[in-house]
Amino acid sequence: MMDLFSPFSGKHRLLALPVVFLLTTAGTAQSPDPVKLDLAHRLVKEELTKGMCFPDLEELCRLGSRLTGSDQAQKAVAWGEAKMKAYGFDRVWLQPVTVPKWTRGKTEKANLLQKGRKPVPLTVCALGLSPGTPAKGLEAGVIEVQSLKEADSLGGRLQGKIVFFNRPFDESLISTFACYGGAADQRSAGPSIAGKHGAVAVLVRSMTNRTDDIPHTGMVNYQKNLPEIPAAALSTRSADLLSSQLKTNPDTRVRLTLDCRNEAPVTSWNVIGEIRGTEFPDEIILTGGHLDSWDLGTGAHDDGAGCVQSIEVLRVLKSVGYKPRRTLRAVLFMSEEVGGIGGKEYGRIAEQSGENHIAAIESDRGGFTPRGHSIQLPDSTVKKYQDWVPYFSFFDADKLVRGGGGVDISPLEKTGTHLMGYTPDSQRYFDHHHAATDVIGAVNPRELKLGAAAMAVMVMLIDQEGRK
Amino acid sequence: MMDLFSPFSGKHRLLALPVVFLLTTAGTAQSPDPVKLDLAHRLVKEELTKGMCFPDLEELCRLGSRLTGSDQAQKAVAWGEAKMKAYGFDRVWLQPVTVPKWTRGKTEKANLLQKGRKPVPLTVCALGLSPGTPAKGLEAGVIEVQSLKEADSLGGRLQGKIVFFNRPFDESLISTFACYGGAADQRSAGPSIAGKHGAVAVLVRSMTNRTDDIPHTGMVNYQKNLPEIPAAALSTRSADLLSSQLKTNPDTRVRLTLDCRNEAPVTSWNVIGEIRGTEFPDEIILTGGHLDSWDLGTGAHDDGAGCVQSIEVLRVLKSVGYKPRRTLRAVLFMSEEVGGIGGKEYGRIAEQSGENHIAAIESDRGGFTPRGHSIQLPDSTVKKYQDWVPYFSFFDADKLVRGGGGVDISPLEKTGTHLMGYTPDSQRYFDHHHAATDVIGAVNPRELKLGAAAMAVMVMLIDQEGRK
Repeated sequence: MMDLFSPFSGKHRLLALPVVFLLTTAGTAQSPDPVKLDLAHRLVKEELTKGMCFPDLEELCRLGSRLTGSDQAQKAVAWGEAKMKAYGFDRVWLQPVTVPKWTRGKTEKANLLQKGRKPVPLTVCALGLSPGTPAKGLEAGVIEVQSLKEADSLGGRLQGKIVFFNRPFDESLISTFACYGGAADQRSAGPSIAGKHGAVAVLVRSMTNRTDDIPHTGMVNYQKNLPEIPAAALSTRSADLLSSQLKTNPDTRVRLTLDCRNEAPVTSWNVIGEIRGTEFPDEIILTGGHLDSWDLGTGAHDDGAGCVQSIEVLRVLKSVGYKPRRTLRAVLFMSEEVGGIGGKEYGRIAEQSGENHIAAIESDRGGFTPRGHSIQLPDSTVKKYQDWVPYFSFFDADKLVRGGGGVDISPLEKTGTHLMGYTPDSQRYFDHHHAATDVIGAVNPRELKLGAAAMAVMVMLIDQEGRK
Repeated sequence: MMDLFSPFSGKHRLLALPVVFLLTTAGTAQSPDPVKLDLAHRLVKEELTKGMCFPDLEELCRLGSRLTGSDQAQKAVAWGEAKMKAYGFDRVWLQPVTVPKWTRGKTEKANLLQKGRKPVPLTVCALGLSPGTPAKGLEAGVIEVQSLKEADSLGGRLQGKIVFFNRPFDESLISTFACYGGAADQRSAGPSIAGKHGAVAVLVRSMTNRTDDIPHTGMVNYQKNLPEIPAAALSTRSADLLSSQLKTNPDTRVRLTLDCRNEAPVTSWNVIGEIRGTEFPDEIILTGGHLDSWDLGTGAHDDGAGCVQSIEVLRVLKSVGYKPRRTLRAVLFMSEEVGGIGGKEYGRIAEQSGENHIAAIESDRGGFTPRGHSIQLPDSTVKKYQDWVPYFSFFDADKLVRGGGGVDISPLEKTGTHLMGYTPDSQRYFDHHHAATDVIGAVNPRELKLGAAAMAVMVMLIDQEGRK
């Protein structure tokens, strides 16, 4: 795009700027309250000009990856606690949780082997909770399958083999979370099914929309009473290579070496901070993300973004001088990636102590440009929330639609909490999800800040009007 | 985000997927026609699964940058012609245009000089159409200003100085194009104002939302009869450094060396391809982007994206077996960045030959995730186009709002053409605009394809229903 001020475009100068807020498509929504609309504008402006969530995320990512149970995860707990105290929240505390400790080790490699040819390296990473292979590796023939059902139907033919789950994302779906949802069972449940039939290891095509050399990790859900066999993700290019070689040479073998291992569980913490409500302090509005990450990148999008945004909602409201009627609480959950443990413990204690969470908003879909919020309630209630569309239209964050809240807040559902998920655009999420590319360089500061602003506006509306 | 299939989230498995299309916020829009809605769905699906625009963009970027008048720009012309022929368009032709030729040369450097200290390098790039400095560089004291008006008011005090325009983007604005629109006059018009008052050179803060070490180029609009002095962009970090040093040491000087130069104009081409309409062949619906780019990156977003999307609209419609009623035409305009010359020539010839362009859609805002289209027409007409919102809602591209079409199609306005601009999300655009980072790695394939699909749906609707 050229200079808007050149003589060649002079008369179209103003028209050349997209005037995106003159009209909205939300014809049926009620007229917004001018005072609250003005506050929404101020929150967005404050966030864009003086928002702290991006520098906070830079700090958090500098600690390194935050694998649950790791030393860095513990450092991140201390960071979160100090950060919320520094922002002057009324109360900040830690909630202990017992979490698994898994370590990747130093070796993870795979080679494609064919008679009379040099070994060809495959790009691979161990999957979370996988045991290691023997130190010298294991070697076996490979059987490619497209589904859990296909693997199960092969039964004894898997004996002694490496089972290779290679069903790709269905790219025809608009939401990449739907692509992921249609493929991730291979990683989660594939290893136990293969183990049941005597396979020696599992390789899984990485869960991503991209064709590249970057492997994506993630948790395996080993079923009790079935053999726990080593499991690794192949980059999509390595998966394509292995698949093509198997077609022309079914005797292709793979040698896999992993020295990951499971250690004894350790104590970690959810980090919680709150600003007390002035009128209804017992009504809690929660914002949350998870503090643990996978260990290949630094969890910038997954879910450092959600953590800093959850803190930022309270900070920015405080910073514009807003006095909440209800109690606002930010929670950094531990061990979401491995067992959703922090969320379950938080929910258990909330129920036990009779706390009244009227609403909870989780941010765990990346720090990308906003689309809106998904609301885990019946259509009739979602429609009522859509009255608030005009408070979000001016910054293009107005898709208030039915959908899930998130893993960490889901245990609150049974106490009647209104669950919501902050919803950024999904297209780039699985470029980085659980991979070495999930680093601060993949985050755009304005996108992250607009997300925090969208959550802050939602929290302000619930605080002002009560939930729908 | 953890595995959706773990036992910990089992009962929330379906809810955990954002169900974003159950409800739309477009309550007042008319019910969509099921046949056309089905076709819209097919176009999006075809594009996401078999779209060619991303591999096309990879090819185009492999040719290198496409500075107007350069050898690579000429190669890109041949590429565009061959591509449209290979896709079997009914007619493909070149339209000659005379374009300026400017070359950056090999040296561009700047050093901050203070007595008794070592020179400090500043990150700098020459601005388009700037003359070079003397071979050994030029050295002068620096006057920082925030606006054209401030520079002009300083008058004779600019004599012999380097004028440093340092007004940053207004980050409080939602659209980054509005940020740009509020700052770009410094680059475009600053050098002539400084030259008028005897300044020896101009430095301009780069036009970007980021604070980094990447300088952003762009055209200077030198006014006739005023001295044409060398002009360069500083990266935002270098601009901040220079500004802070000037505050403590007003005697700070800068040495600037540029060996860019203007050469004689050359002949280049607009590349045009069309599929003839079956019912109203004289009614043309145009899609277009500009083939030239700046020379620091490879113009992946600006505007390789718009070129491949404009071609892709015709290809994907053909690929699903669609027979257009009207003539569909893709145009790759030359020399948009330097003078908007291709667009002006195309418009001149269209008017001269009495061609009837009923609508034109320009894509020149990057290959990012879709928001919708801006429509350069009065509110009352824009409201009519909003009847089509339901055809765009299912893939989140439904912001049909009043706004500009684009520089290249603007000359068609006087013939009554309905002008539209494809509108992706703007947040990341000025991270890459006119900079070395505008390369294929900054483009997400699905975002690019969804943009092409949005344009294809709009073209299909205009073709089916006529314009509003």
